[in-house]
Amino acid sequence: MTLLERTLRRIEPQSREHRRQAEERILDLTMPRWALGRVLDLAVDLAGMTRSLAPAVKQKNIVLMAGDHGIIEEGVSEQPQAVTLQMVYNFIGRGAGINVLARNAGANVTVVDMGINHSVQDLADAGKIIDKKIAYGTKNFAKGPAMTRDQAVAAIEAGIEVAYNLSPCTDIFGTGEMGICNTSPSSAIIAVFTGVEDVAELVDRGAGLPAAKLPHKAAVIRKAIEINRPDPNDGIDVLAKVGGFEIGGLAGLILGAAALKKPVVVDGFISTAGALIAAALCPDAKEYMIAAHGSMEKGHRPMLELLGKKPLLDLDLRLGEGTGAALAMNIVDAAAAVMTEMATFSQAGVTVTGIKEKEND
Amino acid sequence: MTLLERTLRRIEPQSREHRRQAEERILDLTMPRWALGRVLDLAVDLAGMTRSLAPAVKQKNIVLMAGDHGIIEEGVSEQPQAVTLQMVYNFIGRGAGINVLARNAGANVTVVDMGINHSVQDLADAGKIIDKKIAYGTKNFAKGPAMTRDQAVAAIEAGIEVAYNLSPCTDIFGTGEMGICNTSPSSAIIAVFTGVEDVAELVDRGAGLPAAKLPHKAAVIRKAIEINRPDPNDGIDVLAKVGGFEIGGLAGLILGAAALKKPVVVDGFISTAGALIAAALCPDAKEYMIAAHGSMEKGHRPMLELLGKKPLLDLDLRLGEGTGAALAMNIVDAAAAVMTEMATFSQAGVTVTGIKEKEND
Repeated sequence: MTLLERTLRRIEPQSREHRRQAEERILDLTMPRWALGRVLDLAVDLAGMTRSLAPAVKQKNIVLMAGDHGIIEEGVSEQPQAVTLQMVYNFIGRGAGINVLARNAGANVTVVDMGINHSVQDLADAGKIIDKKIAYGTKNFAKGPAMTRDQAVAAIEAGIEVAYNLSPCTDIFGTGEMGICNTSPSSAIIAVFTGVEDVAELVDRGAGLPAAKLPHKAAVIRKAIEINRPDPNDGIDVLAKVGGFEIGGLAGLILGAAALKKPVVVDGFISTAGALIAAALCPDAKEYMIAAHGSMEKGHRPMLELLGKKPLLDLDLRLGEGTGAALAMNIVDAAAAVMTEMATFSQAGVTVTGIKEKEND
Repeated sequence: MTLLERTLRRIEPQSREHRRQAEERILDLTMPRWALGRVLDLAVDLAGMTRSLAPAVKQKNIVLMAGDHGIIEEGVSEQPQAVTLQMVYNFIGRGAGINVLARNAGANVTVVDMGINHSVQDLADAGKIIDKKIAYGTKNFAKGPAMTRDQAVAAIEAGIEVAYNLSPCTDIFGTGEMGICNTSPSSAIIAVFTGVEDVAELVDRGAGLPAAKLPHKAAVIRKAIEINRPDPNDGIDVLAKVGGFEIGGLAGLILGAAALKKPVVVDGFISTAGALIAAALCPDAKEYMIAAHGSMEKGHRPMLELLGKKPLLDLDLRLGEGTGAALAMNIVDAAAAVMTEMATFSQAGVTVTGIKEKEND
């Protein structure tokens, strides 16, 4: 049995019993019924994921998967491909947005080369990144598959391995990514899964494509889907035909986290494309995903709807890198703390009348 | 000149020059143009408030104002008034939601007695709360003014004094409150300021009033406004006739923060009622307010619209105490950190093409 098969078999739904116990505990805390709203929903989720009423969330690790994309040949980005590499050095130099926001969240950042179109052997040799390079960038999926089916499986398994290897020092994962052009495969993935007529509804400006070039970007993606005909019932086929190496790595990371019964905070548009691949391979994996934020990329909302997730934050972000995941982690801390640290009505000597009881509306 | 008059004269708008410098700096950081969206808007606000491109936000203080309400005689709450006092002891015992969430945010909690209908002299003598008691609860504003005009000014000035006294140990304030029935004066305040026809649109369930009793609560507030005829052009008149002592204290705290050129994170429905009183006395004070979250109380949205604020969070909270302010403070930290800690394009050696330039749409 392959690593992927073994991992998929390990994934179980959240524990209903721990969810029930968490709800019971929360209803006994000194506040009006469910008065911390979605923070409490999240606390129940954490209990269900981790099988604990004191869920561990202290050791935070944002895994930033990087890769390049052959689709850049089609002129779908204004930025040179070298920016992927330049930003990887920025991550290692701790000057990027994700470094600042991860520090603010008390999270580590782990950078993984999934398929950068340059050698980063120096960084791997120095122990600064994890080397899981599948190839030097994907192929141009406007002309044929982005990668082979074997490469797609290898990318997912690389992500699973990263999750397993980091697990001893990680209570909660976050997803991040870097890859010039990677909004294009992400738009293609959501287009395939929704079977939408008009791809343009799912195509947006990424890192700053001028609005005038959006119809071209949409046309490229439309054509790519027609040529490749990815099977929406086969997540590996979708990844292989219109995906990216870092997107496969993210799918694997999420599956690995779910197999480990650990929460994974899913960042924005590209990360959620990875989450869609993971969910296609194993619907129960959704129960370990926490949607960090709603991205400015207009294809992100349909992704979240498909996953049945409502994001914690809505701050007009469109940076990626895991920045939204880092911002959301403080709310995860808050949820765990509320469940474990608040006083109960009897502990605090607070009158329960009209507060705790179920509202009779 | 009174303390209130002196304070109102001290309040100046944000520094446009520091806002401009902050925008310039942010545009040079290694990310696509404004890719951290509202986090960057907040960073610009912090620079404009504090007159610094490295705004201090480390010392956080959530000031929790407590008071009781004579309107309880009208049956607008299911909870006994004693819960205000019980919860104050819970705050001092550090078992309440605000204690947990403030700890999670790295914030202190300062509890102020503005008008609890019980003696808390023991807590004041022990140095555990600040004693600014105006009276043992307001009068029933369904029958006449909640307080005298002098008491309203005294409540506001008490809040100003608290801000000034805490200022040396506070970079950023948060607002919090406790007071059984205090959604009723808050609904009355927004009803007066909007001049809405149907008060019921602004009345909601507070800590858990059964839906069947909402029409009664609305009727009480409608009648109270008719009897008292508060002048929407006179913030002190509104506070005196349909407000509360803790709401006056919050208004003062916000005015004090604005005079000190320090940000103040405004929590939910009742806190925002205090913010409306502050804004009525000095519109420029709005420039120092950060709206923490959108409350479940349906009167909160119209309040935020009146202030021209969009909340940072939307998590279905309805607890008060300052809990939303505590949750939002991590985003404030993030905003300040992004502006001060991220690398610029030249520092990181990242190509600027198509990233930094103004989008030409």
